[in-house]
Amino acid sequence: MAFTAADAQFERRTRESFAKQGIMAHLGAALGSVAAGRVEISLPFRPELSQQHGFFHAGALSTIADSAGGYAAFTLFPPEAGVLTVEFKINLMAAADGEHALAVGEVIRAGRTLTVSSIDVFVDKAGRRTHCATGLATLMTLVGRSGVQG
Amino acid sequence: MAFTAADAQFERRTRESFAKQGIMAHLGAALGSVAAGRVEISLPFRPELSQQHGFFHAGALSTIADSAGGYAAFTLFPPEAGVLTVEFKINLMAAADGEHALAVGEVIRAGRTLTVSSIDVFVDKAGRRTHCATGLATLMTLVGRSGVQG
Amino acid sequence: MAFTAADAQFERRTRESFAKQGIMAHLGAALGSVAAGRVEISLPFRPELSQQHGFFHAGALSTIADSAGGYAAFTLFPPEAGVLTVEFKINLMAAADGEHALAVGEVIRAGRTLTVSSIDVFVDKAGRRTHCATGLATLMTLVGRSGVQG
Amino acid sequence: MAFTAADAQFERRTRESFAKQGIMAHLGAALGSVAAGRVEISLPFRPELSQQHGFFHAGALSTIADSAGGYAAFTLFPPEAGVLTVEFKINLMAAADGEHALAVGEVIRAGRTLTVSSIDVFVDKAGRRTHCATGLATLMTLVGRSGVQG
Repeated sequence: MAFTAADAQFERRTRESFAKQGIMAHLGAALGSVAAGRVEISLPFRPELSQQHGFFHAGALSTIADSAGGYAAFTLFPPEAGVLTVEFKINLMAAADGEHALAVGEVIRAGRTLTVSSIDVFVDKAGRRTHCATGLATLMTLVGRSGVQG
Repeated sequence: MAFTAADAQFERRTRESFAKQGIMAHLGAALGSVAAGRVEISLPFRPELSQQHGFFHAGALSTIADSAGGYAAFTLFPPEAGVLTVEFKINLMAAADGEHALAVGEVIRAGRTLTVSSIDVFVDKAGRRTHCATGLATLMTLVGRSGVQG
Repeated sequence: MAFTAADAQFERRTRESFAKQGIMAHLGAALGSVAAGRVEISLPFRPELSQQHGFFHAGALSTIADSAGGYAAFTLFPPEAGVLTVEFKINLMAAADGEHALAVGEVIRAGRTLTVSSIDVFVDKAGRRTHCATGLATLMTLVGRSGVQG
Repeated sequence: MAFTAADAQFERRTRESFAKQGIMAHLGAALGSVAAGRVEISLPFRPELSQQHGFFHAGALSTIADSAGGYAAFTLFPPEAGVLTVEFKINLMAAADGEHALAVGEVIRAGRTLTVSSIDVFVDKAGRRTHCATGLATLMTLVGRSGVQG
């Protein structure tokens, strides 16, 4: 699936919006590659992200997965349009035990109002990568509104 | 749906496990009421939890929703059993604009291996409560293992 | 959750639309009660609806659940508006072993563009009702279009 | 993702189980290719499968998608094991307007107890293929039981 961005400034817009997400800095997440229809977010492990067994909490993975899926959609939006997560679903397939997590969001279908992205999370431990989570997100294009669902 | 806990110490076990989730302290979340099959988690807003418009990030809400749904299931588990989130799905129904979020997890069906919980998130602003998110989670009982999916 | 229909003719519109769903007659499903924001669909068991163990196939249950959730939303739509299922998720919580299935769709949140419905399926066997499936559906209002997603 | 079947007779077992699903014959669905971890099911359009606009009903697509995802998992199970759909989620991305639908189920992760499959549905019209639906399913291995969730 190859997509063409409607706005040549999509990467700049995406990085500016990401920088406004206070939770990303709070978790320690960083925006990686930003391509038309595909975005990566990385997150180093630290105890502040853990569940009761000391691994990444599903919520931490879901947070970077949600943003990766949302920004993947956002890269294809026209300038001035905002993005809203309508819903997402995620399967936690393996214990997220590792030093580093990587969320990849990729647009599957881009529509005028709704876009569907796949969201996947990989965790690296001692040089070995595990596909820990996979999901789907539905995103909405917000045009001519303040970015808040009406 | 009224459930009876298999372990009279379910509340103590639940509070001890919650205290081990590093991400809860990091986000500022607190465990509220813990009943058999029903758990509440509250989260005051702060800029470190925001998305790009200054509201609660969907990931912050999903994190407390996931834990609320998981611990609702956990309250019904036998002693020594661990809980694992298999998957969850969440609909973000309204902008999470407010001073405080409350996640409620409630068991819908408790099975030997799998349990299904509803997960709902409410946000309070100026005394008005909005039902911001609703979802479903599938949880797995882990018995005789170290609490990690095999 | 009490909703007020925008169109006083909502029940007639709903029954007319249901009658056009060829699959409902083919499965043997019947539209039950139609209220503002809540719709029931019933389905008697027959071998033509079975999975490999002789129970209702999850797809048969999902089909009536999807229509129940969609029509629950549709009852709240303005005249001339069509309904489209954006996505749904369903948990199959118990073997659907019985003589009769009942799907209940109920609106949780009605928005201008998107509506969220809960979808639940109950199966009756020898006078005992089991809550076999629960899910969530996202529906879209289609206005001024031919009822087909653009 | 390449998988090795635990049972060399996986294709025969899969075809025998499919033949027992009464709903498949009733809808007119046929089992296509059966490989280790990947199964296809095809479904020609007929008015008995339609929604109110004359296209494939989402339930018809979900039914073949559910079976494709379930049998993809089943191909990797040991002999004597049954398969149960725990839950699935599906996004309807485009109007399912066409002569023929094809559901593809592919295992993403095979676990001892739980397996995750992707489910995709394509619709052909006048020689053009559209990716109409995508989803995820969670399947459970049933060993030493009669194939019914306990």
